[in-house]
Amino acid sequence: MKKIEIGHGSGGRLTRDLIEKLFLKYLDSNELKPLEDAAYISFESPRIAITTDSYVVRPLFFPGGDIGKLAVCGAINDLAVSGASPKYLSLSFIIEEGFLIRKLEDVLKSVKMASESAGVKIVTGDTKVVERNKCDGLYINTTAVGEIIRLLVLDNISDGDSVIVTGTIGDHGTAVAIARDEFQIDASVESDCAALNSLLTPLFDIEDLKWMRDPTRGGVATVLAEVADKTSLGIEINEENIPVRDDVKFISDMLGYDPLYLANEGKAVVITSHEAADEVLNKLRLHSLGKDAAIIGRITTKHKGVRLKTKIGGERVLDMLEDDMLPRIC
Amino acid sequence: MKKIEIGHGSGGRLTRDLIEKLFLKYLDSNELKPLEDAAYISFESPRIAITTDSYVVRPLFFPGGDIGKLAVCGAINDLAVSGASPKYLSLSFIIEEGFLIRKLEDVLKSVKMASESAGVKIVTGDTKVVERNKCDGLYINTTAVGEIIRLLVLDNISDGDSVIVTGTIGDHGTAVAIARDEFQIDASVESDCAALNSLLTPLFDIEDLKWMRDPTRGGVATVLAEVADKTSLGIEINEENIPVRDDVKFISDMLGYDPLYLANEGKAVVITSHEAADEVLNKLRLHSLGKDAAIIGRITTKHKGVRLKTKIGGERVLDMLEDDMLPRIC
Repeated sequence: MKKIEIGHGSGGRLTRDLIEKLFLKYLDSNELKPLEDAAYISFESPRIAITTDSYVVRPLFFPGGDIGKLAVCGAINDLAVSGASPKYLSLSFIIEEGFLIRKLEDVLKSVKMASESAGVKIVTGDTKVVERNKCDGLYINTTAVGEIIRLLVLDNISDGDSVIVTGTIGDHGTAVAIARDEFQIDASVESDCAALNSLLTPLFDIEDLKWMRDPTRGGVATVLAEVADKTSLGIEINEENIPVRDDVKFISDMLGYDPLYLANEGKAVVITSHEAADEVLNKLRLHSLGKDAAIIGRITTKHKGVRLKTKIGGERVLDMLEDDMLPRIC
Repeated sequence: MKKIEIGHGSGGRLTRDLIEKLFLKYLDSNELKPLEDAAYISFESPRIAITTDSYVVRPLFFPGGDIGKLAVCGAINDLAVSGASPKYLSLSFIIEEGFLIRKLEDVLKSVKMASESAGVKIVTGDTKVVERNKCDGLYINTTAVGEIIRLLVLDNISDGDSVIVTGTIGDHGTAVAIARDEFQIDASVESDCAALNSLLTPLFDIEDLKWMRDPTRGGVATVLAEVADKTSLGIEINEENIPVRDDVKFISDMLGYDPLYLANEGKAVVITSHEAADEVLNKLRLHSLGKDAAIIGRITTKHKGVRLKTKIGGERVLDMLEDDMLPRIC
């Protein structure tokens, strides 16, 4: 068994061989093992959050992660920023005929490591195989379910609230851009791809925590533009307070990107009352994933939309991402 | 907006336009509308079943259904055969650049119709766009969650149990085969694609209901071979009792297929005690989707594996599907 064949998606003998010999080697929860059509799971409370994402990142392997780690962390993060505690994950593969089993195994190792270290169980899955040129190696869907701890909705946000990011921005977008041969850049930026539940769950205790979002596609700017649009509030951001790694800044300048629009896969935008901002910041900074957390701006009723105060004293309007210069970032 | 562009997957302005102008036109549950990263849902009990499947069916539209209807019904059926009541669905699209918005709209109409008529809510979703020749038009992942009513596990099955199918077999496989231009067959077989929850839920009251499965990829034969293998019991099937439409039989013969290995998308294999078999049969036949239900065989300890008694008095061993003559059937 060296390459994926069409028969591995047949639902027959070859599918079963693939699942039993490869998948179960890495994914072995009690819920998954019966290999039935559905998995039986249980919660402590019947109030659940659910999220789904399909991952089509190119290339499949990049500094700091791969599509497997990304698919697990992405699902976990979507629940964590929604005030939920992620518990169970489904995992669905679409694989291109001819894909190397060895690569699939590498992805499964990442899935195992990422899910185990985040304390989330993979309980059900699916595998489809399509012909050559009907996929780009491998696409993965993950759907995660977890228990709601805090209801975090946009309505919570009000004038004067603080806007925090949990760390440096643009790392993932830059790492993936570099990993694409087309740019021929020799630099070593790693994706920030990480599960944020252990970082964000401690914040659920803070009453004045308002809302969170992980700024993936479209970056921090797009998330803030959405918040401003949906709440009809304004947001003021100070460029000098935004944490950006020097190398990310340098490469972005070179490629014509703005880190504010680059994808992150291990960061959150956190909105909290002005009064609770320091407490949130302190809790975040206790965690290795939050050591660079910073207050980058505030909610205002003085204007609509998002305005960025630049380092040189100017002001710029930040709108949602218009052109996708880096498609298939996740 | 006539065709899908790369930017529709950017997470920025174009993605939002697509979601607000097209998706929300057809999918409008209160849980989905906030368009947050995760949806908040609630159950009456914290004992949940979860299932996931990615759909890559070719062609996307076929007599009796399309990829949208299939993706909704498939998820619902996986829960229904597991003894659960489907409640919520996630929906994730991978779309090829250039895909016609008109076609996407047709798929969304099917999704809406299938989910509404089955009483299941679509609560969260995702859209990714990939370049030309990195997909085949459209792939869909659905993940469904529902409340467990009955725990149906293979361990329940024992010697003497009856094996029932809820209707004619091989309809979906035949319909899709015909819909592929490659075969140039002029016949009108419709896929049986349907949500089975309203058919199967009434069976949950029957104490001697043992186990169910919807025989999709690999067909009835593969499902039974798996049951025999996992339980170490034998299964005896009588060919003359297996309901097969005449046109399905005719076309299968012509193409060299065996209806027992063809996919079904609106049928279930039901295993029940011998004593309860008539009650199950009667309940099934009350429903339009179960009118052709039949007892096709029984569980035995006299041999291992699945044996088919043919109409002409012979005997044939049924194993799991070996060659996939009809890939991408779902």
